[in-house]
Amino acid sequence: MGSNKIEYGFLKEIGLGSENLGGYINGKWKASGPVISTVNPSNNQTIAKVTEVSLEDYEEGLSACSEAAKIWKSVPAPKRGEIVRQIGDALRAKLDDLGSIVSLEMGKILPEGIGEVQEIIDMCDYAVGLSRQLNGSIIPSERPNHMMLEVWNPLGIVGVITAFNFPCAVLGWNACIALVCGNCVVWKGAPTTPLVTIAVTKLIAEVLEKNNLPGAIFTSLCGGAEIGQAIAKDSRIHLVSFTGSSKVGMSVQKTVSERFGKCLLELSGNNAIIVMDDADIGLAVRSILFAAVGTAGQRCTTCRRLFLHESIYQTVLDQLTGVYKQVKVGDPLEKGTLVGPLHSRVSKEKFAKGISLIKSQGGKILVGGSTIESDGNFVQPTIVEISPSAPVVKEELFGPVLYVMKFQTLEEAIELNNSVPQGLSSSIFTEKPGNIFTWIGPNGSDCGIVNVNIPTNGAEIGGAFGGEKATGGGREAGSDSWKQYMRRSTCTINYGSELPLAQGINFG
Amino acid sequence: MGSNKIEYGFLKEIGLGSENLGGYINGKWKASGPVISTVNPSNNQTIAKVTEVSLEDYEEGLSACSEAAKIWKSVPAPKRGEIVRQIGDALRAKLDDLGSIVSLEMGKILPEGIGEVQEIIDMCDYAVGLSRQLNGSIIPSERPNHMMLEVWNPLGIVGVITAFNFPCAVLGWNACIALVCGNCVVWKGAPTTPLVTIAVTKLIAEVLEKNNLPGAIFTSLCGGAEIGQAIAKDSRIHLVSFTGSSKVGMSVQKTVSERFGKCLLELSGNNAIIVMDDADIGLAVRSILFAAVGTAGQRCTTCRRLFLHESIYQTVLDQLTGVYKQVKVGDPLEKGTLVGPLHSRVSKEKFAKGISLIKSQGGKILVGGSTIESDGNFVQPTIVEISPSAPVVKEELFGPVLYVMKFQTLEEAIELNNSVPQGLSSSIFTEKPGNIFTWIGPNGSDCGIVNVNIPTNGAEIGGAFGGEKATGGGREAGSDSWKQYMRRSTCTINYGSELPLAQGINFG
Amino acid sequence: MGSNKIEYGFLKEIGLGSENLGGYINGKWKASGPVISTVNPSNNQTIAKVTEVSLEDYEEGLSACSEAAKIWKSVPAPKRGEIVRQIGDALRAKLDDLGSIVSLEMGKILPEGIGEVQEIIDMCDYAVGLSRQLNGSIIPSERPNHMMLEVWNPLGIVGVITAFNFPCAVLGWNACIALVCGNCVVWKGAPTTPLVTIAVTKLIAEVLEKNNLPGAIFTSLCGGAEIGQAIAKDSRIHLVSFTGSSKVGMSVQKTVSERFGKCLLELSGNNAIIVMDDADIGLAVRSILFAAVGTAGQRCTTCRRLFLHESIYQTVLDQLTGVYKQVKVGDPLEKGTLVGPLHSRVSKEKFAKGISLIKSQGGKILVGGSTIESDGNFVQPTIVEISPSAPVVKEELFGPVLYVMKFQTLEEAIELNNSVPQGLSSSIFTEKPGNIFTWIGPNGSDCGIVNVNIPTNGAEIGGAFGGEKATGGGREAGSDSWKQYMRRSTCTINYGSELPLAQGINFG
Amino acid sequence: MGSNKIEYGFLKEIGLGSENLGGYINGKWKASGPVISTVNPSNNQTIAKVTEVSLEDYEEGLSACSEAAKIWKSVPAPKRGEIVRQIGDALRAKLDDLGSIVSLEMGKILPEGIGEVQEIIDMCDYAVGLSRQLNGSIIPSERPNHMMLEVWNPLGIVGVITAFNFPCAVLGWNACIALVCGNCVVWKGAPTTPLVTIAVTKLIAEVLEKNNLPGAIFTSLCGGAEIGQAIAKDSRIHLVSFTGSSKVGMSVQKTVSERFGKCLLELSGNNAIIVMDDADIGLAVRSILFAAVGTAGQRCTTCRRLFLHESIYQTVLDQLTGVYKQVKVGDPLEKGTLVGPLHSRVSKEKFAKGISLIKSQGGKILVGGSTIESDGNFVQPTIVEISPSAPVVKEELFGPVLYVMKFQTLEEAIELNNSVPQGLSSSIFTEKPGNIFTWIGPNGSDCGIVNVNIPTNGAEIGGAFGGEKATGGGREAGSDSWKQYMRRSTCTINYGSELPLAQGINFG
Repeated sequence: MGSNKIEYGFLKEIGLGSENLGGYINGKWKASGPVISTVNPSNNQTIAKVTEVSLEDYEEGLSACSEAAKIWKSVPAPKRGEIVRQIGDALRAKLDDLGSIVSLEMGKILPEGIGEVQEIIDMCDYAVGLSRQLNGSIIPSERPNHMMLEVWNPLGIVGVITAFNFPCAVLGWNACIALVCGNCVVWKGAPTTPLVTIAVTKLIAEVLEKNNLPGAIFTSLCGGAEIGQAIAKDSRIHLVSFTGSSKVGMSVQKTVSERFGKCLLELSGNNAIIVMDDADIGLAVRSILFAAVGTAGQRCTTCRRLFLHESIYQTVLDQLTGVYKQVKVGDPLEKGTLVGPLHSRVSKEKFAKGISLIKSQGGKILVGGSTIESDGNFVQPTIVEISPSAPVVKEELFGPVLYVMKFQTLEEAIELNNSVPQGLSSSIFTEKPGNIFTWIGPNGSDCGIVNVNIPTNGAEIGGAFGGEKATGGGREAGSDSWKQYMRRSTCTINYGSELPLAQGINFG
Repeated sequence: MGSNKIEYGFLKEIGLGSENLGGYINGKWKASGPVISTVNPSNNQTIAKVTEVSLEDYEEGLSACSEAAKIWKSVPAPKRGEIVRQIGDALRAKLDDLGSIVSLEMGKILPEGIGEVQEIIDMCDYAVGLSRQLNGSIIPSERPNHMMLEVWNPLGIVGVITAFNFPCAVLGWNACIALVCGNCVVWKGAPTTPLVTIAVTKLIAEVLEKNNLPGAIFTSLCGGAEIGQAIAKDSRIHLVSFTGSSKVGMSVQKTVSERFGKCLLELSGNNAIIVMDDADIGLAVRSILFAAVGTAGQRCTTCRRLFLHESIYQTVLDQLTGVYKQVKVGDPLEKGTLVGPLHSRVSKEKFAKGISLIKSQGGKILVGGSTIESDGNFVQPTIVEISPSAPVVKEELFGPVLYVMKFQTLEEAIELNNSVPQGLSSSIFTEKPGNIFTWIGPNGSDCGIVNVNIPTNGAEIGGAFGGEKATGGGREAGSDSWKQYMRRSTCTINYGSELPLAQGINFG
Repeated sequence: MGSNKIEYGFLKEIGLGSENLGGYINGKWKASGPVISTVNPSNNQTIAKVTEVSLEDYEEGLSACSEAAKIWKSVPAPKRGEIVRQIGDALRAKLDDLGSIVSLEMGKILPEGIGEVQEIIDMCDYAVGLSRQLNGSIIPSERPNHMMLEVWNPLGIVGVITAFNFPCAVLGWNACIALVCGNCVVWKGAPTTPLVTIAVTKLIAEVLEKNNLPGAIFTSLCGGAEIGQAIAKDSRIHLVSFTGSSKVGMSVQKTVSERFGKCLLELSGNNAIIVMDDADIGLAVRSILFAAVGTAGQRCTTCRRLFLHESIYQTVLDQLTGVYKQVKVGDPLEKGTLVGPLHSRVSKEKFAKGISLIKSQGGKILVGGSTIESDGNFVQPTIVEISPSAPVVKEELFGPVLYVMKFQTLEEAIELNNSVPQGLSSSIFTEKPGNIFTWIGPNGSDCGIVNVNIPTNGAEIGGAFGGEKATGGGREAGSDSWKQYMRRSTCTINYGSELPLAQGINFG
Repeated sequence: MGSNKIEYGFLKEIGLGSENLGGYINGKWKASGPVISTVNPSNNQTIAKVTEVSLEDYEEGLSACSEAAKIWKSVPAPKRGEIVRQIGDALRAKLDDLGSIVSLEMGKILPEGIGEVQEIIDMCDYAVGLSRQLNGSIIPSERPNHMMLEVWNPLGIVGVITAFNFPCAVLGWNACIALVCGNCVVWKGAPTTPLVTIAVTKLIAEVLEKNNLPGAIFTSLCGGAEIGQAIAKDSRIHLVSFTGSSKVGMSVQKTVSERFGKCLLELSGNNAIIVMDDADIGLAVRSILFAAVGTAGQRCTTCRRLFLHESIYQTVLDQLTGVYKQVKVGDPLEKGTLVGPLHSRVSKEKFAKGISLIKSQGGKILVGGSTIESDGNFVQPTIVEISPSAPVVKEELFGPVLYVMKFQTLEEAIELNNSVPQGLSSSIFTEKPGNIFTWIGPNGSDCGIVNVNIPTNGAEIGGAFGGEKATGGGREAGSDSWKQYMRRSTCTINYGSELPLAQGINFG
């Protein structure tokens, strides 16, 4: 396909070649592990080769990172913010190129690829301000001549393991905050998106070098499960931020907990949209489309379950099947494409198996339902009419498959929304204040993201991102997410010469 | 011993008899499990008998509690605060009696017993104010006609598993907050302090009943490991707050994580005091005494390791051995006693074994070192001179044993402080601002509690209580600990008719 | 009237007699100013006599208060909270009696009198929790070895000047917060409600005395404008919290500003309710009634302006006139009364003059419009149809007079709402999310209180109470109102030996 | 002098010529008022000519600004942040040139000129992050089916009147925050630093234009007292932020208060440094030098009073006079100069008069004390030994004059520190924790800035800047200063169909 020619242009712009070293270790690019090929999911042809890191490389990287941590944590937070500001500017200067490589290697459409890079830039801007606001507290002490402080200090090293579907934004959520908080970062990107990992790391590395800081402050590792497991086990890594499936996440948590480390988990979602009888149907249909087929259904916030009030069930379904039929599936770098390929051959196979399973459980395919014959991993955006009690509905099938179900009352719809193991995102479409506030209140959605009249996906960085239950409970990006990247101390300073005790206890 | 006669007086005052039912289930006192005896650790004689709950009782309790949770979470938070205020008043009215039963059954001296009850009362007062301050946030949205909210809703049910050493204060830390946050509480007290559990529960139950609220809002269960395990496994319990050893804590966490529940862990401590060459020695010695022998060394915040600057090593040691020799060990209810018995025969045996191990690792007993011949579980407050590299120093021996070690520089002392698996509490005695701020800063103590010129123990409720590393990472009582008892939702409400996307993405 | 007999009962219960001293000065009851009579507004008969304070008394009081301030500010905040808790309990024990005296002396109906006392009690409970949460901040410094703190310290003395319409609740808003913040309080109640002032002060005084604290921590002064002026001028009083008319408030502010003191102003309101075409009419009518005739229209949050969408104009008006006709005007202590007398003969006269002025400006009286012949200060609840351009509509007539006007669009209604000098409270009745969020957003109401589907009056203590523009800008009760009662210091501590400068400046 | 040739270089770089229009009005450069000359204080020669605005220009500007306010307040805050980010980048690109023009026109040395511009840049970076954190609150309601919100909305227009001594940093403190908060800004710079005003405005204007936003969002006015008075009176300007003397500030406040507008005042300082007997003398001397002679003593935070413990009085004085003698006074643009000229001929005259007054009140000149013969406004850095009771010590003499006094105890030193009308900044030099915490506590300094072991001047932007008493009480830059630029609404939304009342009142 013609797109290859275009590709090489922007690859070079950001320092990528046909062969690339996949480790930024102790401030140097090196890697002594296996050589892998990274492929374009639109045609499964090799884009470039990448040498992954070995466990020896890992050990060298962590060793240097531990040393760098001593330096970095003593740099005043606003000065760390200035470094993150420069990282943001470096990314901004390469926004389009980076967006293109995300699109090429991951398979999402270009506006989404650029949007993803914009999200790291936004995170950098946000983190700069935050670097002067990592505030502790002075809490009134009940004892005279005592001062009680809640102080926040850096953890040390934060490991960030990201997934293919957001090959760089999730790094941004974590690393921007972790860095201003005074932590070194060890990043393992997805094994199938090494070019994005390398390209982003190069820009960060340049900033560190320009400021005469140890490169080991940011350690980047292309590699597979072996490296992920090393991170999970490594007690030098105080926090492991993991994005991926609930299954792998639970295993990571187990390993990290056994060494009393901290975890921040962003796991599977199984997100629902509820459309009430009083909803703005046009708004709902546009939102469902974006939520269900955006990123080819491979967002953790993708809408997978659609609950329609019986009174507008058929209307919404008719409109939705109408717009589904106009969706252009194709090369994600081409203008006009709305849905690119699934990320990998395996994804395509899982889609096919998933459709079989759906049918076997009584699911009725309304639109789509097939893979698309081609060298790439394309599949049809799919709508399925199914019973909420079908077991498949409780699981996350990572592709553009939407289950449609009917309900009669808000209470019933909320109960359905909450009836799956996952608890990431959820939306309602309604025009009634009573419905809105019930939905976001104690008897409403049990998810971490609870939207009204917008899709389940497309979060802003100012809020905390993450979900409950099998989604893992972590929160990233805005709000007070930064607290997870720091160690809290309750400090009481006696500056008098007496020794009064708390609760008025008299001892001796 | 004469104390028995006094005992029965205050037991009756708070509704306890010679035989007691150990379950408050669905608003009724019932229990169908084994009958156990609770003993006075000063003489190992039975105080009273208690029937523990069975798993059937547990199931009935949880079933009722789940129903009550639907009601309680919809009560406005300030109204929940009013209930907690009444609980505080009920406890205040029985302060001395409750303090006595704590002292009798746990073995701590009476001022500490009363102090512990005062701590729940303080928590109630604090939680009342908090009930109008469980504030969410309104966060600026980047999209026109959108409002972004961070809303906090109740979790549902909070399980609280407490330990013998603080048989009621830890319940207070958790339950007062959990209740105002809108959660029902399921409490399992320590198997060896059931009378405290029952007495406290009775007062809470009366308040619920007086306000025509379901008793199942507070479910109380006397029982052993089987009940604890049931709580850990039960997916109806959204948060399990566990206080106990690191070993059991890790097992609880594993069980709870496997069902993607939440844990709040308060585990082992191994707390150090550092005395610098410029310290106020008198203040330090008084503090070390309270920290090392208070509660007979059975606080999680007990000082177990003492680091003395070489220049004041002998001076401090001389003064300390001097005061140790004057410490009165005896009946905790008697005036003048500073150190009561260990809580159980097993504790006394562990103490004896611990001393042997200490000696075998080169520890030199400076004071104490023996159990005391008597029907009770008394042991001698003990000071040991030992090398920081001895393995015993890394472990928590739950009794009044203090390891003394020498250092030369602040950096060395901090490194020693941080060199154990546990990370709960720590103190420095110094008069230099440079030392103080280094100690509480990024290169200082890695503990959750970082004190200056006060002991390691005796925390105020306004701060967050808890520790890092093998101490489990939970935070209880003040600061923003309440957030752990609630579910956070990031809500975005679109009140316009357009559908702008975050990061300026243009889809379709 | 028969009520007099009942009166004397509850007066004695709270320590009031037929003659009373109006000053609590340096912990003693004394007063050497003029003797005044306080009257029952239902019949204008004397309830009791009160000796007001003289300027000499004032000086003695302030002098003692200044000394007490040195002690009180050094008491740890949570200990100050414990005193406020006891004050709350003392009030709670006399809730009904205090409510009755409020009702008797001020003229509001008994449920409102009791509600007002409950509000101080709520404030006490709230302030107790707050006493452990008057948190400062630790802010990251850009300089190594520097710590930046934002510390909150007591101001010293807070003067509180309250008005007749809330003779004790407003004291509670201010004093509970001021006290836990470490300030002494100097209270001047309204000249026409001295019994409430004395009764409340007696309970506070007893608590201080019981705790062996100087009575001068709370200094209470019955008196007139001369005493108010002394407070405004007195540079020993760091903050003057004034509740009253915009006119007097501006004069107080001028006086206080001239000595660079601080003011907290709660001045006139001119509050509107907007009823949209999609509103729940029943809910709106009930709310308008409470907002317009509650406390006989003498709340600062009383609804004085009613904007009805043209499509529901007549419907609402019909229902409203219907319920107005059923309103029982009479003795506020009698069960069933909804509207008591105006507070004073002067108020009644102003009402009569106001009605004349309204008529002269084209106002059409739909209901009421007359004073009621009796010994008391009763007037008829009144509805007036008038043009929004009539000058009277811009002013606050302190009685139960409601101006009704018509509008066509939300924008128009908001513009009308915002078109008066005052900016206290405002409400909209609507069922559309777009209307709600527009109303509370940047293009909505410009008031300090912006309600939806509830009346303009009846605020909860958890929020900040107060208004913009001619209402004076102060905020009392909840949220971060406490900050106004404290002095903020930005503290930077250099604990190193170098002298780095901010903004990287190199000097010398 | 040779510097003129250099000057014109950087002037052109930032768009300045020999004749300049002094108004940016409705997005256009225009001015129809008097033409003034701006002079170099080093030689009193004209740098360039500037046409000031007339009252007609003012009116046109405000009219356009009012229209622009409607647009700007509806732009989402993070988008406003993006504009401020671009302003920061525009300033960063011209950092050295702007620093030079500040130095040339104001007279401060170049490192201080550049530092001042860096401060606006820092403010921009900070404000970008803040634009996603202008958080309101969701406060628990005591009523079922009610939601209580504290919402922050833009004020509308903020007037900023700045002084010559910080001709652009103070604009930055105000405008960066005001803009992200959604307000338009009307800026009147000092009449004697119009080139700085114009240069900074040009960069801001370009950013607005590039983003197709109305230029009237930022309205800039060169002019004198007449324009300042117009701003104070103008009820379209919701907040007037004024920096200047206490005397003028009080007058501004009076004018603004009369229309119930808001004021933010940064007025006179009279700042002290206390040196305790245990201080690091070397650190203290270096700090005093910077604090007393930096910016030629023309900072509001300049140290004017020095309290030395009697035991180190002579030592400090000897060292201080030693370093004073080495201070190079001269052209502020020349490398090596520490002290430039006073800003104006009038300042030089006031200095001379001030020295006479000092002498007449018993002051003994230890160093300096004279003006320097030259075309410029140079004076000698001066140290005066004087009694704390001399009236001159209570006043702010705006030049490099330092009063030295002796004390015996910390309590005495604090009392002296607090004994002046002003309350801006203060420092202590000590190595004792007891001194430090007393100093920052309730019995310590009564200033807004309370430093330890650093000078009185040189604040970081992360903290709140401002002072108490005659300093005016305003707070700018960091912490929650942004709240002053917004309007707070307490919103209660009833989304149920019932009408429960607060405090449990039952009405009707």
